[in-house]
Amino acid sequence: MSDDLLTEPLRIENGESHAPARRRPRRRHRRGEGFATTAPTTERPRDTTPRGHPMTTDVATAAASGASATERFHTDKSPYAAVAGTPPERVDRLARRVLEAVYQTVRDEKVTYDEFNALKAWMIGVGEDGEWPLFLDVWLEHVVEDVNTAHREGNKGSIEGPYYVPGAPEHGSTGTIDMREGEAGTPLVWTGTVTSTDGTVLADALVELWHADADGFYSQFAPGIPEWNLRGNFRTDAAGRFEIHTIQPAPYQIPTDGSCGRLIAAAGWHAWRPAHLHVKVSAPGHESADRAVCTSPATSTTTTTSPRP
Amino acid sequence: MSDDLLTEPLRIENGESHAPARRRPRRRHRRGEGFATTAPTTERPRDTTPRGHPMTTDVATAAASGASATERFHTDKSPYAAVAGTPPERVDRLARRVLEAVYQTVRDEKVTYDEFNALKAWMIGVGEDGEWPLFLDVWLEHVVEDVNTAHREGNKGSIEGPYYVPGAPEHGSTGTIDMREGEAGTPLVWTGTVTSTDGTVLADALVELWHADADGFYSQFAPGIPEWNLRGNFRTDAAGRFEIHTIQPAPYQIPTDGSCGRLIAAAGWHAWRPAHLHVKVSAPGHESADRAVCTSPATSTTTTTSPRP
Repeated sequence: MSDDLLTEPLRIENGESHAPARRRPRRRHRRGEGFATTAPTTERPRDTTPRGHPMTTDVATAAASGASATERFHTDKSPYAAVAGTPPERVDRLARRVLEAVYQTVRDEKVTYDEFNALKAWMIGVGEDGEWPLFLDVWLEHVVEDVNTAHREGNKGSIEGPYYVPGAPEHGSTGTIDMREGEAGTPLVWTGTVTSTDGTVLADALVELWHADADGFYSQFAPGIPEWNLRGNFRTDAAGRFEIHTIQPAPYQIPTDGSCGRLIAAAGWHAWRPAHLHVKVSAPGHESADRAVCTSPATSTTTTTSPRP
Repeated sequence: MSDDLLTEPLRIENGESHAPARRRPRRRHRRGEGFATTAPTTERPRDTTPRGHPMTTDVATAAASGASATERFHTDKSPYAAVAGTPPERVDRLARRVLEAVYQTVRDEKVTYDEFNALKAWMIGVGEDGEWPLFLDVWLEHVVEDVNTAHREGNKGSIEGPYYVPGAPEHGSTGTIDMREGEAGTPLVWTGTVTSTDGTVLADALVELWHADADGFYSQFAPGIPEWNLRGNFRTDAAGRFEIHTIQPAPYQIPTDGSCGRLIAAAGWHAWRPAHLHVKVSAPGHESADRAVCTSPATSTTTTTSPRP
């Protein structure tokens, strides 16, 4: 396993990732929104956690984000219905393989009872913090994505992540994503073309964009942000093109005050995600493709999607 | 891995496990206690789940047992304090090994997104049901026990399990464990000797005994049972002997209505534990030893403990 699977598990595909060296303006903390007073910069920011004003309860804590992500998962997915026909032999096989690997680790590494009890406390804590979606999306989903898109000829996929919400406002092929008045952050224009794997441009393809704000927070998961802030759906024009006006998202840390943060600290990893746009592209007769795109103020990409097999 | 690691994860060491063929008297359901009306028999009982009267809330559900076990774990252990000095390299190494094994399983078995989402829902559910202690004690602790007692010359250990509570009433070397008036179940006399590995008998050794009742329930984890019911501490006499009067515990299922039960059903395993006594033996200068002993109405064992290295 390469180091970056664990230290940078949110893999970023192409796009220019060279952020301008100048600092973005510092955003003032607004009472009641609970944002950190220290805005991330386009350089690698310092650790600003704990986020939020300690005197308000309306802060972006791990438990609050986790509860949102867990609730969203329950609402959006019917996970057991989708696997109702799975034969017991399959479940047995998958569970045994994973357990046997854990057993081998315990034997080879001579795991102590103290370590076993710490693992137990930690697994209890991940649930209490609502961080199972976060944990699995950060540390496991990228492998599931690789396996399930291995047959594709188009862009390599990246993970959907825990913060996708379907049904964002529609804007046509050119437009400005919903944002607050005076939204902090460097303006960003993202243009692109959607093509099939044979190079044919795809008109009327759906381009769903969602990304963090200049403080690293996502609407619907952090408090005090309008529902569809920095979330929008666009449609390619007859030439397969789109042009989206937004602001540059910040690099951000996954919550450091929860159980995932505890693991990161204990293992000497770091919690930073590079600044990125999430995009999901769909076109009739083609597979839906998720990507994460690193950004500069003017970013241009071509997204290639595979015809459905 | 042998089949029985998963289908009989609570491993039972020596002792006679041949239960008498005659049925024990059926125990009547008492309102307010929430016990099943179908008492387990000494033969392999039928599935009596869901346990408890559906019209009472004071029933032995997975969530109630799980919440008790999780709360008990929080109260009795200081799991993070005990590993505070662990170097990050150790945590990193353990986490990477387990994750890499999971990644290899996903790749080899081509795990689908539907399966990934079912895993996510299941891990969320284990926490909501309070079943991480149960899961880890049933499916992992036995390997930790093997690794940590490999150096011992005495009895092979078995797991403490999630239902141990320290500080039970003391009874001397011969006595009757605390039980309810008219406690259901076949009377059981358990006699034994505690020796060091060189055969020296150990006087004043502490023998802590705890076991399920004739319905398969543990006091302090199922509702409506007196606090120390079928829990007692005994001390060996000058000849290293003890004699304990109790009732024969029932075989029981781990909860089938929670997330562990869901895994068992999905994988085609079974939830039954054979009838067993839990015993923890401690003597000055010797290692504490956990064992699980299968029972017949008159059970006699020798427990051998290792001098502390």
